[in-house]
Amino acid sequence: MDETVLHQLISRKLHHQGRKFSYYIEQIKLPNGIEQEYGYIRHPGAVLIIPVTQDNQLILVRQYRFALQCYLLEFPGGLVEASETPINAAKREFQEETGYYAHTWIKLGESFTCPGYSNELMYIYLAQNLEISKTHLPQDPDEDTETVAMSWDELRSLISGSKATTNLDATSIAGLYMAYQYLESL
Amino acid sequence: MDETVLHQLISRKLHHQGRKFSYYIEQIKLPNGIEQEYGYIRHPGAVLIIPVTQDNQLILVRQYRFALQCYLLEFPGGLVEASETPINAAKREFQEETGYYAHTWIKLGESFTCPGYSNELMYIYLAQNLEISKTHLPQDPDEDTETVAMSWDELRSLISGSKATTNLDATSIAGLYMAYQYLESL
Repeated sequence: MDETVLHQLISRKLHHQGRKFSYYIEQIKLPNGIEQEYGYIRHPGAVLIIPVTQDNQLILVRQYRFALQCYLLEFPGGLVEASETPINAAKREFQEETGYYAHTWIKLGESFTCPGYSNELMYIYLAQNLEISKTHLPQDPDEDTETVAMSWDELRSLISGSKATTNLDATSIAGLYMAYQYLESL
Repeated sequence: MDETVLHQLISRKLHHQGRKFSYYIEQIKLPNGIEQEYGYIRHPGAVLIIPVTQDNQLILVRQYRFALQCYLLEFPGGLVEASETPINAAKREFQEETGYYAHTWIKLGESFTCPGYSNELMYIYLAQNLEISKTHLPQDPDEDTETVAMSWDELRSLISGSKATTNLDATSIAGLYMAYQYLESL
């Protein structure tokens, strides 16, 4: 497959500028000649933090998600602000969402979260040597999170069985695996 | 945390009706009283298939992704059509994208792919006892895929190291872990 064959952009329109991302509509011509319109989200990038305590518990957050109209269990994370590096965003989001500070940060990888309609790239970190932060960072006003500590076995049980995983989002499951692989390799 | 406290919908507007999903803008009042507008994708749901051959190879597809302007390695999958059940969509997409037919299907779970701005729910299946399909199902005209077979170790190596995982999307990593967990539990 020729990696250099990309689609041809015929037109691009900013359809909606949200606070956190923008929605574009493009008219494109595919490598195979097909011409079509499609909409997608242009995203500044995000961070996901897999926090592991000294007694080997994982720290997650239960967060209200507008689009689902429910609370969802996820690892801490959030957007990379224009002024930030991904690691700085990870440290800020971790403290904002959980009140913890991590002395050890290891980058586990990067992954696209929904390539079908978003260019969001997620930077995934393992956070270790945690302590309760002395300086309180306020949450974003639209965030409503509760910190939850779970064992590896408790979390694994959430991603076994045919329904339970609706409790845990896909990027959190991916991050859990990347953290597991990394810690197994030591 | 009171699970019944949901946000209050003030207004909802269909902003763009795409072929595969729609983009909505809503004015909402959060449980914490904050009122704001946000945009998100309303999605019909999708399937992800983790295909394992008799000689324990995993079948993936390399697919051109408009939003990223690159080819990405992913497990086969796609949208659940209005007329389909998730398992029927999984069987159709698997055959369309890879040319394989699976005699054994096991549901591994369900997971939200990007809860921050989409209500997409992914139904994840393990497909085993594969054979090349006798009936050819044409790909969607906007799909441009190449089938790739990899060992578990080759795939694991893609999700180790700080950069490699940009090759593999997050839901595929999640699905790989769910398949690994399931097969380990037997």
